[in-house]
Amino acid sequence: MTESWADAAERIGADLHLELSGPGGRRAALIGALREAVRSGRLAPGTRLPPYRSLAADLGVARNTVADAYAELVAEGWLTARQGSGTRVAERAEAVRPAVRVAPRTRARGVRHDLRQGTPDASRFPRTAWQASYRRALQQAPNEVFGPGDPAGRIELREALAEYLARARGVRTEPGRIVVCSGFAHALRLLFGGGVLRGPLGVEAYGLGFHRELLAGAGVRTVPLPLDEHGARVDLLGRERAVLLTPAHQFPTGGPLHAARRSAVVDWARTRGGVVLEDDYDGEFRYDRKPVGALQGLDPERVVYIGSVSKSLSPALRLGWMVLPGHLVDQVLGVKGEREGWASVLDQLALADFLAAGSYDRHVRRMRQHYRGRRDRLTAALAAQAPHIEVTGVAAGLHAVLRLPPGTEPSAVKGAAWQGIALDGLAEFRHPETDMEPMDGLVVGYATPPEHAYAAALEALCGVLPAAPDGDGHHGGLGTGREGRRVG
Amino acid sequence: MTESWADAAERIGADLHLELSGPGGRRAALIGALREAVRSGRLAPGTRLPPYRSLAADLGVARNTVADAYAELVAEGWLTARQGSGTRVAERAEAVRPAVRVAPRTRARGVRHDLRQGTPDASRFPRTAWQASYRRALQQAPNEVFGPGDPAGRIELREALAEYLARARGVRTEPGRIVVCSGFAHALRLLFGGGVLRGPLGVEAYGLGFHRELLAGAGVRTVPLPLDEHGARVDLLGRERAVLLTPAHQFPTGGPLHAARRSAVVDWARTRGGVVLEDDYDGEFRYDRKPVGALQGLDPERVVYIGSVSKSLSPALRLGWMVLPGHLVDQVLGVKGEREGWASVLDQLALADFLAAGSYDRHVRRMRQHYRGRRDRLTAALAAQAPHIEVTGVAAGLHAVLRLPPGTEPSAVKGAAWQGIALDGLAEFRHPETDMEPMDGLVVGYATPPEHAYAAALEALCGVLPAAPDGDGHHGGLGTGREGRRVG
Repeated sequence: MTESWADAAERIGADLHLELSGPGGRRAALIGALREAVRSGRLAPGTRLPPYRSLAADLGVARNTVADAYAELVAEGWLTARQGSGTRVAERAEAVRPAVRVAPRTRARGVRHDLRQGTPDASRFPRTAWQASYRRALQQAPNEVFGPGDPAGRIELREALAEYLARARGVRTEPGRIVVCSGFAHALRLLFGGGVLRGPLGVEAYGLGFHRELLAGAGVRTVPLPLDEHGARVDLLGRERAVLLTPAHQFPTGGPLHAARRSAVVDWARTRGGVVLEDDYDGEFRYDRKPVGALQGLDPERVVYIGSVSKSLSPALRLGWMVLPGHLVDQVLGVKGEREGWASVLDQLALADFLAAGSYDRHVRRMRQHYRGRRDRLTAALAAQAPHIEVTGVAAGLHAVLRLPPGTEPSAVKGAAWQGIALDGLAEFRHPETDMEPMDGLVVGYATPPEHAYAAALEALCGVLPAAPDGDGHHGGLGTGREGRRVG
Repeated sequence: MTESWADAAERIGADLHLELSGPGGRRAALIGALREAVRSGRLAPGTRLPPYRSLAADLGVARNTVADAYAELVAEGWLTARQGSGTRVAERAEAVRPAVRVAPRTRARGVRHDLRQGTPDASRFPRTAWQASYRRALQQAPNEVFGPGDPAGRIELREALAEYLARARGVRTEPGRIVVCSGFAHALRLLFGGGVLRGPLGVEAYGLGFHRELLAGAGVRTVPLPLDEHGARVDLLGRERAVLLTPAHQFPTGGPLHAARRSAVVDWARTRGGVVLEDDYDGEFRYDRKPVGALQGLDPERVVYIGSVSKSLSPALRLGWMVLPGHLVDQVLGVKGEREGWASVLDQLALADFLAAGSYDRHVRRMRQHYRGRRDRLTAALAAQAPHIEVTGVAAGLHAVLRLPPGTEPSAVKGAAWQGIALDGLAEFRHPETDMEPMDGLVVGYATPPEHAYAAALEALCGVLPAAPDGDGHHGGLGTGREGRRVG
């Protein structure tokens, strides 16, 4: 009886797929198939081939046919045979032509000092505690975890989030109103890509361009709201159907939304039937001032609260959440669909354990101290070397804004690039349709560099700032006394 | 000096957010804020409150104010104080009104025997080996892993996939042409949702409805290709711009695409500038016949190969991949975007290790034996108890099709539901616009039930099949001798 493919594969230790469809006999066909597999790079140099017996059983040919074919290809130089290590693919094989790719952000060339906003200190990921949570989660998971999942996300995680967000961020919710997703962009797609919410959408005049692009791609018109010293001018909202805000820490300028504005935007939503989207991207990191709770707490039926672990742990986990008004839950889940969990269920369970074990609280507190130290070093360096530069937005978050004299931002950004400093100017974040007075400034992410590189990055930064003008160095605009350099 | 929020939080051991904005003095405001936090469910029953000193420092009020507020709320019954365990929220608190939700698939009511296709045996997830790979991956990961990622996916995984897919599935590729995603649906979205590919799209007349819905949602018209004993009638392709096929194992009817059709569809793509999408959803599971390699190997510049771990490991991981023609790579990455990895980077690294360590090969072989045993028990039970029922599509995959006499499918599906058997009829998968002769049949997923429940599920299944008609029990159509019941 011929041994079946399955039995052969079981014994070989690894599958090898070959088509013997060429012209000529079985031996010629096998030689052709193996040669083509090596030439095309499908069998990589150094790959060990199955023993004669296994491949013969597998392909339904005589063992000698395989032995002959191997010998022929060794003779031709495609394979090598060495005593005790079997037959392997020779090192000379040519690979498939590699695709040409645009270099991803992580490999940006010429960057010596990375002061871009948006990412936590990658060297501080809590590997040990996370691994412990993942191990416990995997051990304790019921079998159904590995089957088709709940599009809302694992209940364990939604329960842990409901407790945490209520306690730490003032969110009023319960697990049935939470939908797990892969981050803020995914949340926007679910809300606007499937028609749950519609535009026009009010947005802050300064904000993330890729959010605007994503919304434009979904056919949503964004209407910029000017910023002043109290935050976004929500009093200008009119016929918009929703508004997207960063109430705890305006991105990127850095102030909190004033209490009167918080009430006003909720009143607008109630009166007009609008929806407020709250992007709580770094609400856990505040250093001096009293923490600002979630706007969602003012009206859970009018505010969609969106958060993620991208700033608190790492963007690599791709884990975020929406806290929804009750009437939107089923619509969002309908768009998400049963088969599109889009967030690793095992990571969801690991995060649930990480929250419940108190590891999340511990990590956030440790990182708060760490980033406060970074922030203090930044403000101290500027006070010493560039006292004419006003620093705003430093009471919270992972970045600061260095305000510059009008018109000087482009040359400062260019100068920074010349010195190998990666950072953005405020212009990068400006809504193209706003008529708000332009602000000049540099957005400095102080969380990004590894510890050993931070001092040099600060030194380089101070070296490219514009020199002090004659007279007063204060440039007006959004800077408030509370938010100014006099901190820490 | 007043202790800062950060210092206080550090010492409390957990964050507690309160707003003291109510009317009256600090004490009244604190009482009101705490009462509201408990009443709204934001502070869950049993939650331990911070010590007086911590909360006082945190809120910038006197310690006695906190002590008074706690005492008042204990008196009111909102809090309880016990020697040695501090002050806690009482057990009577009322929660936020829960959102009403449609029950997800996993909680379908009345299902006693789950024979739905589409999922692997959830009880066989290789927990120990996966945990070992995850641990190694997390320990060895460079810090940059925790920063912003490459939208193509981790290079470690793409390298491991290129090696594995070449060896086991006959795919011709290199890591630069692979894009990691969260599964097949995500791949379709990236290809069609962002305009990389356009319709009309040829699809098999029987296939997954949710793929058709997803495509319709992206504005893509699907054109059904009839099936015959050689698979999809690709000779009928005309002005379609792309075609989606399941060449290794037609879903759901079960046969492989004939060699002549494989060549023909590649010729069509070359002649018309079309693209072939190859859904290799369960290509690793074949039991008797010679394995069918990936169609992609015939022309890597014309075929997009799509696979995932959803059948081989678990859909819970949300990990899949596209192998792209060189000229589509940058377009797909442009749609995916730098910030939308949508697949946990740690799971990506774990899978890379799992592949490189040989654990993936071992698991696939073990599961192949397991599912072959399941398949054999199914065919044996049918041979004994319902010999008139023809079984097709059993040479591979995780499901079989039980062909039924014309017109009997609806009553059989209904009968199964009455007996608590969850399964689908072929009608469920039929393209609404096809003019192909309808086929009656039950799609039986034999991987889904846990081991202890399988015998009872088979027994129940045999009990609801239509009785033998007079004369010949063969119903024609797609059944080929090779694919028939005479296996195992």
